[in-house]
Amino acid sequence: MIENDNLIRKAEPADHEQIIAALQNWWGGRDLTAMLPKLFLNHFSDTSFVIEKDRQMIGFLIGFISPALENEAYVHFMGVHPDFRKMGIGTTLYERFFEICRKHGRHIIRACTSPVNRGSVDFHKRIGFRLEPGDVEIDGLPVTSDYNRPGDHKVLFTKLI
Amino acid sequence: MIENDNLIRKAEPADHEQIIAALQNWWGGRDLTAMLPKLFLNHFSDTSFVIEKDRQMIGFLIGFISPALENEAYVHFMGVHPDFRKMGIGTTLYERFFEICRKHGRHIIRACTSPVNRGSVDFHKRIGFRLEPGDVEIDGLPVTSDYNRPGDHKVLFTKLI
Repeated sequence: MIENDNLIRKAEPADHEQIIAALQNWWGGRDLTAMLPKLFLNHFSDTSFVIEKDRQMIGFLIGFISPALENEAYVHFMGVHPDFRKMGIGTTLYERFFEICRKHGRHIIRACTSPVNRGSVDFHKRIGFRLEPGDVEIDGLPVTSDYNRPGDHKVLFTKLI
Repeated sequence: MIENDNLIRKAEPADHEQIIAALQNWWGGRDLTAMLPKLFLNHFSDTSFVIEKDRQMIGFLIGFISPALENEAYVHFMGVHPDFRKMGIGTTLYERFFEICRKHGRHIIRACTSPVNRGSVDFHKRIGFRLEPGDVEIDGLPVTSDYNRPGDHKVLFTKLI
């Protein structure tokens, strides 16, 4: 499907390598590659998307429908190439994901980010995510400390669709 | 359910903290905590298990039914406390997982491990997993190089149930 000259398509296992490269380059030097083992591309490709311009990947979203929480879905990663931000790429990816969620009868969408990633916090607020209460405040944000492991604090997002 | 005085039960989000502690202590010093963000406990609890003895966790398995690959299921982590190995704990955990997989009509079970984890390789072979061909050989094992990210080589396992 073409939107604004960009091609949005389902992610495939073969995309893993370029997504890992993006994780190394699009997040301002933080190495997040351990967070995206290949299993996410092998098994959640039906609910994950890549967006391309001139055959170059400029954005991706990795999400899944929760098997345990029957009204929920989760976005594990969403990234947009730094040269293509503020152009609606992230919104397009999320809208496609929401569409799939509605088809599966899911109305609670969750995601999280590190408090240092202010761009991600602002983006999620802009598209209608609410910030969950945390147990500490960092830079004015509600943060759940040690969320994924000791020292890995997270801002938790929820959106009802 | 009690088996050999041990209690096996579904994993819960509240187990995440003790599983993270196990990841730091049961793998001989390798820090694998980045591989198990809380999402696995929040969303895959119906297909993940904890086994306890005297209310102490002595083993766990984190797995899921593949949404994209309709005959497959995947085990992301399985660990047994070092003091309780070679007692059938891992086999019990896998058998419970296989039972769930059969109920979902899944007959191909996949998992992977690092070539350095010889104990895991031997265990998976013992319970009937086949080692997939790789692109390199390390210590006599078929290894898929850079499987999860550059430098993260893996031995891939498959079992038909």
